[in-house]
This record gives sequence, structure tokens and C-alpha cells, in this order.
Amino acid sequence: MSRIIYVNGCYYPYHQACLHVEDRATLFADAVYEVIEVKDGKRVDEEGHLKRLSRSLQELQMTPNVSIESLSFVIREVVRRNHVRNGFVYMQISRGIAKRDFVFPDPQTTACSITIFARSKSKDFFETSAQKGIKVITCPDIRWARPDIKTTALVASVLARQKAKEQGAQEAWLYNQHQDITEGAASNAWIISEDGELITHPSDGQILKGITREGVIRVAKEQNLTYLERAFSVKEAKMAKEAFISAATNLVMPVISIDKTTISGGKPGGVTLKLRSLFHEFALMTS
Amino acid sequence: MSRIIYVNGCYYPYHQACLHVEDRATLFADAVYEVIEVKDGKRVDEEGHLKRLSRSLQELQMTPNVSIESLSFVIREVVRRNHVRNGFVYMQISRGIAKRDFVFPDPQTTACSITIFARSKSKDFFETSAQKGIKVITCPDIRWARPDIKTTALVASVLARQKAKEQGAQEAWLYNQHQDITEGAASNAWIISEDGELITHPSDGQILKGITREGVIRVAKEQNLTYLERAFSVKEAKMAKEAFISAATNLVMPVISIDKTTISGGKPGGVTLKLRSLFHEFALMTS
Repeated sequence: MSRIIYVNGCYYPYHQACLHVEDRATLFADAVYEVIEVKDGKRVDEEGHLKRLSRSLQELQMTPNVSIESLSFVIREVVRRNHVRNGFVYMQISRGIAKRDFVFPDPQTTACSITIFARSKSKDFFETSAQKGIKVITCPDIRWARPDIKTTALVASVLARQKAKEQGAQEAWLYNQHQDITEGAASNAWIISEDGELITHPSDGQILKGITREGVIRVAKEQNLTYLERAFSVKEAKMAKEAFISAATNLVMPVISIDKTTISGGKPGGVTLKLRSLFHEFALMTS
Repeated sequence: MSRIIYVNGCYYPYHQACLHVEDRATLFADAVYEVIEVKDGKRVDEEGHLKRLSRSLQELQMTPNVSIESLSFVIREVVRRNHVRNGFVYMQISRGIAKRDFVFPDPQTTACSITIFARSKSKDFFETSAQKGIKVITCPDIRWARPDIKTTALVASVLARQKAKEQGAQEAWLYNQHQDITEGAASNAWIISEDGELITHPSDGQILKGITREGVIRVAKEQNLTYLERAFSVKEAKMAKEAFISAATNLVMPVISIDKTTISGGKPGGVTLKLRSLFHEFALMTS
């Protein structure tokens, strides 16, 4: 099946989908993006993702000449044209093509670039991972000081994920100068304490406010789980009863080891699996 | 005159020079770059720039399938085809096109992408600026913790430069948590003390080791100027006798105000102008 990618108003065959070399996404990572999960043909919490995209655009003072409604239409169309039932859709907006210069180009003459593509993922892929659980490593958080803006300046996360892979793990949890875990390279980090408290780092600017994270919070509240937004250290994480990550593509994914320290006996924890199951139901409601 | 851009083995007319939307430069800022000044048809210290490019590639574990000699040939060819006598040549190497995933794609099946373009600049442009001097503002250094690697993850520098422009300045000097100035958004920062000491931040990983910065150091040493690599605070900078920035495109550019505090009476300083003139001679030697 040939794949279709949307770029600036047109639907291109995969190999023809390009951005100019002077696009600011390419030269400066002057671009923001979102990834939305597609589950049984439905886009999970698209509204939440588009709201966050709007915030990212606002923080970078980018004003694309497209309404959220039009964007939503194109997202649906890209999913449809690629026959994605289960997978994800990726959208990116850059400040457009302009003669290379750090300062913003004139928005009157430079249109933002919009790219949207979608890809199928086996429905079982994440389920199989979830049954086994994943391993995480920890490494210093060397990203820029505005991870709350979802930009494509992701090279630090690339290096962290690669380091995780090289150590047989699937995610890297990043810690700040206080040895507190902020979040994962591309997910939010969660622990469950001995007392059954659900703990994740506050969305105080040091992390990206995950859409799935918000959903987990909602589900946890509905279940009357004790939920705390507070910093937790690497040391505390390693003593946790359970641990997991949340992300649009992984949803709630159990963590079974941190830096080779076994968590919850090396098996996905019970509360985590319950949250995962409840989140699936929640996801269907918001799609 | 139509412009020519080199992308992955071919020379394209400007508007056809593209990178795939799944190029890692576009998705992750997983790319490094260099800008070389072209002066009277000569490329200034190309060797130094290519050496730094090699280091950046090494730090990101990227291994493009091209020799430095071939790269140098293409750079020369791009300059020639664009008839650039005075201006700059920009080269960028990304980890290539691969299905979006944070971890590195298999280097056996994914070739790095190489982009090279050149642009003419009026010879007088920087001379006119140098005669007047430029204004700088200061703002927090919010970049990632590896600015010593010259990646395209530049959105923090974009925001800083834009802020400078909005305040009528041409560059932003970045300060760290100790209120020490590390460097400019896209240049190295220098001050000259009352005692005539030439001061710039050490290349300890907090700054990009500027090629022009190295040249200035060499020239200063030849002139027996007292040269110190040490941190200096925003406060100290504002009390400096003279100040300037160094960059491949600006060379030695006098600074006449910092956050509206006038430096050297609002005119380019004598030592700065002498260094600029000497650097011009030096630049011709290394091209």
C-alpha cells in the first residue's frame, strides 16, 4: 500500500513529500508537533492534542494560516487515505521557508509549513510490550529549558533514547540537578509508592504536559486513587512499588526495571495494569 | 541569477532543493552544520570549520559516507555555481531519512543527508555595521546543555535573537544561573577590561568553540594583548571598556551597548577595531 503525506495543501506519495532545505524546521528546529494515537479508527483525544499544539504555537509566536477545524479535517483525511485503523498520526507546523536568519521572517510574506503523516502499528505491538513491561535507564536532563513547548528540537531526547537502547532498555528517565526525575525522553514518568500513592512530576515548565498524562490523572481521580504531583528522586523511583510511563503511542506502559533495579518483582504491577485497562476505556470515550 | 543548492549528490535549482519530511533534520534536529565565510572568493578557515564539523558528527555518532576532501570539493563547487565572491556557504549533515523513531536508524541502511548552499552578501554590509557598532541585550541561556555541538536544535537561539531585534538590538548575550555571560545566540561574546585585558568565556562545554573566536585568540596573542579565558558577569560586561562579538559571518563586530548601558561611549572601541582589522588580514591567510 502506497503511503500518502500531506505537505502545505497537497497530498503527496511518500517519496515526494518534502520540505525545502531552507524550511525553518530543517534549519532551526523552529517547529512544533503533535502525535495522536489512532485506535480502532478513532483519533484519541484529538481535541487535547490540538489545544496543546495551539499553546506551543502561541509560545513560539507562530500564527499558521489555518483553523483548527481545517487541521482536524486534514488529519482525518490523512488517516483515511493511509487506511490507518490502529497507529498514529503525526502533525508538524514550522515557521515556514525563509532566507536563513535567526530572527523571525515577516509573517505577512512567510507562511507556516504544515506536514501531516500517519502510520499503522500492529494493535498487538504495545499489548505484547505491556504484558512484559519495559526497562528504563536514567540519565541527566540536558534538554533546553522549555520542554513544555513541544518543538522538534529533540536531539537531546534522541541521544537519551539511543543510550537506553544500547543498554537494553526502552526509555530513558531524565533527572535534573536535584536528582529528581522530570520525565522520560518521550513520555511522562510515574511511580506508585508503597502506600499506593500515584506520583508524577508537576507540570511546572520542567516537563511536557502530556495529554495521556492528563487522561491518567482523570482516570486515577475517578478511581479515588491517591494522586500526587510532586518531584521524586531517582533513589525514590528505584524503591517504588510500581512504575510506568505514559505517552500518546504507549498509553500506560508498565516499567519493570530502572537502571537494572527490578521494580515490582520484574513484572507489570497490578495498579498499573488496572490503570492501563481503564485508560483504554477512557481513550475510546475521548476519540 | 538562479541559485543552486546541493542536496545528497545533486545540484538543484533553489526551489527544488528539498529534504524528505521524515529526514531527521526536520523531525528531530538530529543534524549538525557549519557556516563558512566567503571573502573575496576565498573560504575563510574552511579547515577549521570542517574539523569542528567532524567533531560534531563524532559527538552525535554520525558517520556520513563522505570524505572531508569530497565535502570540500562540493563546498567549492556550490560557491562557484552561485558566483559567490563575498558571502557565506552553509553545510548541514543530518542522520538521514528513516521511519520516525527517536533511536538511531541502522547506519547500514540509512545514509546521512548532506545539504550545502551559498549566498552572496554585500561586502559593505558588515563594514557599515562595524563602523556603527551593534547593540546587544542579555537573556537567560535556556539552550540544551551541549551547545559545544553545533546542531540545528536552534529554537532557543531563534527566540533570543528575535527578542534582541524587538528591543532594537542585533544580538542577545546569554547568561547562565551564575549570571555569567556564556556567549551570544549565534556568536561568541568578548569584553575588554579597563586594564586592556581581552576576556571571553572558556570553551568548557557551555559554549560553542567558535572558529572565529580561535582566530581572534591567535591574533591577540601575536599582538601581545593580555588574553583571559574566564567567566564574566552581566554586571562586569556593562562596566567593560570595550566589547565585541565574533562569528564566521560577522568576524569581529564592535558592541556599543548592552541592555541599553552604553559601552565605550557608544562608539566602536579602538582595540576592537584594531582586532577587526588584524583579523581581516589573518582571515585572508587562512583562506
